[in-house]
Amino acid sequence: MENLLSKRIKNVPESFIRRILKVSSQPDVISFAGGLPSADLFPISALEEASYKVLKNNGKQALQYANSEGDSQLRNWIAQRYKDKQGLEISPENILITNGSQQALDLLGKVLLDKGDSIVIENPGYLGAIQAFSLYQPVMQTVAVDNQGMNIAALEHALNTHKPKLVYTVPNFQNPTGISYSQSNREAVANLVSSFDTLLIQDDPYGELRFSGKAKSNFMAFLPEQTILLGSFSKIITPSFRLGWIVAPKWLMKPLVIAKQAADLHTNYFSQRVIVQYLEDNPIDEHVEKIIQFYAKQKQAMVQAIEKYFPKDIDVAESEGGMFIWVTLPKSISSMELFDKAIKKKVAFVPGNPFYVGDEVKQNTLRLSYVTMDEVAIEEGIKCLGGCINDLIKSL
Amino acid sequence: MENLLSKRIKNVPESFIRRILKVSSQPDVISFAGGLPSADLFPISALEEASYKVLKNNGKQALQYANSEGDSQLRNWIAQRYKDKQGLEISPENILITNGSQQALDLLGKVLLDKGDSIVIENPGYLGAIQAFSLYQPVMQTVAVDNQGMNIAALEHALNTHKPKLVYTVPNFQNPTGISYSQSNREAVANLVSSFDTLLIQDDPYGELRFSGKAKSNFMAFLPEQTILLGSFSKIITPSFRLGWIVAPKWLMKPLVIAKQAADLHTNYFSQRVIVQYLEDNPIDEHVEKIIQFYAKQKQAMVQAIEKYFPKDIDVAESEGGMFIWVTLPKSISSMELFDKAIKKKVAFVPGNPFYVGDEVKQNTLRLSYVTMDEVAIEEGIKCLGGCINDLIKSL
Repeated sequence: MENLLSKRIKNVPESFIRRILKVSSQPDVISFAGGLPSADLFPISALEEASYKVLKNNGKQALQYANSEGDSQLRNWIAQRYKDKQGLEISPENILITNGSQQALDLLGKVLLDKGDSIVIENPGYLGAIQAFSLYQPVMQTVAVDNQGMNIAALEHALNTHKPKLVYTVPNFQNPTGISYSQSNREAVANLVSSFDTLLIQDDPYGELRFSGKAKSNFMAFLPEQTILLGSFSKIITPSFRLGWIVAPKWLMKPLVIAKQAADLHTNYFSQRVIVQYLEDNPIDEHVEKIIQFYAKQKQAMVQAIEKYFPKDIDVAESEGGMFIWVTLPKSISSMELFDKAIKKKVAFVPGNPFYVGDEVKQNTLRLSYVTMDEVAIEEGIKCLGGCINDLIKSL
Repeated sequence: MENLLSKRIKNVPESFIRRILKVSSQPDVISFAGGLPSADLFPISALEEASYKVLKNNGKQALQYANSEGDSQLRNWIAQRYKDKQGLEISPENILITNGSQQALDLLGKVLLDKGDSIVIENPGYLGAIQAFSLYQPVMQTVAVDNQGMNIAALEHALNTHKPKLVYTVPNFQNPTGISYSQSNREAVANLVSSFDTLLIQDDPYGELRFSGKAKSNFMAFLPEQTILLGSFSKIITPSFRLGWIVAPKWLMKPLVIAKQAADLHTNYFSQRVIVQYLEDNPIDEHVEKIIQFYAKQKQAMVQAIEKYFPKDIDVAESEGGMFIWVTLPKSISSMELFDKAIKKKVAFVPGNPFYVGDEVKQNTLRLSYVTMDEVAIEEGIKCLGGCINDLIKSL
């Protein structure tokens, strides 16, 4: 009965990363593949305390159906956070709570994209976004990103030629490359976008995880009417709760709420209340600082191990935070071959290929996550990877 | 910039029920409108205990990203429940955990429906399903339901003429009417569907809440290859957790998992673990029995109050369980007018109109929920409604 399947779902390739993650999740594998936050940093007892209080003090409400927009205290907190951290004036009325920012992508695809509409995506770019949008059958225009940000000429060409409905960006510590758009690149992107009837999505799951350097402007500061912000508690508290949000212009909120209602009525309300309680009782800035210290150390361990064990003629993309390192090997090396070799030795990572859309695939790239494994495993895993790379070079 | 909205979202009317629920949720309103389970029945302390255990014993795993299919113990429990309660052999591999059964509807729409595909829905029918499916722009074929179930001639006509991809049913204690399909009606529906290349969805949120009478066959027993089952913990434990599931044939599971992954990666994993722990530590059958006793009493109070305060020439649809009573007033009475009158006196219900698709709207119908309000409020609210109906009759 497979003939009953929709065309849209037939269009979506099974995620290669998903297959990799299954292999990588074996307990004896040193995995640099997933973007799994370090479980050592989950505030387990504080969340236990918060759960207890929520059920004790207001269990009846916390276990009941709730509204589609999300908990008002949680939306207030998010608005206040934008003000405190980025100086942005955002009304809680313009915030919708979603099941992680992944659902935000699905809802935006749903309310904005008809089959054949153009959208701009980063190349290489975040696979979850590509997958979510592709279910609405758009035509994807790719714009290359490098360590300065988007290629402005390519963006201009895409905007002029294809009139995309949206431009999807991860300007801070991008997935997969870890790079951030420079301040001047942001200005140039915003300047271009402002002349077109298009929306700019700033997906920002890692923005709070800055290890060094100075934060750059949020696109909302340049394009208040055209910017959609996505955020998430997954990387700073827990991913299991699936709590994210969309900040959207007023005209877009009503369609988004209708789509949210049709999608699942509302986000798990108990978890929303637990997070509100947690944020009330615990200094989140201290917790985020702890995560930053922890990840910065692990990143340093990984970079040092790469310098020690990898051949010299490789490139590591500059990154000031987030969860990933992007490595470019010598052109002759295929990271897919490297994967096959490494996984036999119980070390996993994600080859760069699946992050590219279209023809300009760099076969010699790889994404390494430094957040899941501890420093000892990082040294061991990178040493093993270095050995595999050297073996591949010798065998050429 | 509203021109950027997709055609699909422009197609979806704002839910009238949603507007009603907003009005009804004022604290001084006696509301028979929503399908909100009685908060007095939420197992608050047992869920508190379960949350504590989950975080204490395995917090790191419970707070981490998880797989898209859902927790394996939870899927095992659901499969076992089908076996114990309905004698159905279902493999946990064929179960996908969703954010309430509402998300199941969205995922099924996504993987099955292209624009213009036909589907069969009940008339009157569940608005959440109509809303979820309508985002995928199908053509809806309505089949009337009465207290025997689906109109077989109409179903046959729809199947023959429109070759629908799916037939959506709520055969037990249907929303909005509370009716159940008879055994012979189920057999006739299954017999018809078996000759067509179509799927039958049995949405069953209320199936466990049987107050009287004998359970009828699950469609899965007749149509093992063509039936999709939807279930939910919302009505028997808590709706806030948004935990539901799909049982689907093997060929459909992979597309559904891809769609789930694109939609939100996975369902809140902490809540899945809490429910597993709760089910391990608490006798769910006793809890369900408590809900049944409670709701049966409230239903009886409502029926008795209707007999006492409503005019004699009305019809109350026969129902053996669930959450709703369906009332048909004299033809001359508009339930929308009744709503306007009643809400001024702080009593709310849902007029029947929005549950109908197409032209055959019965303007004199209403849905009354007996699960949210206690017996005193039920008597008071029904008395007030009866007064309003009598006023409307006098003013004719």
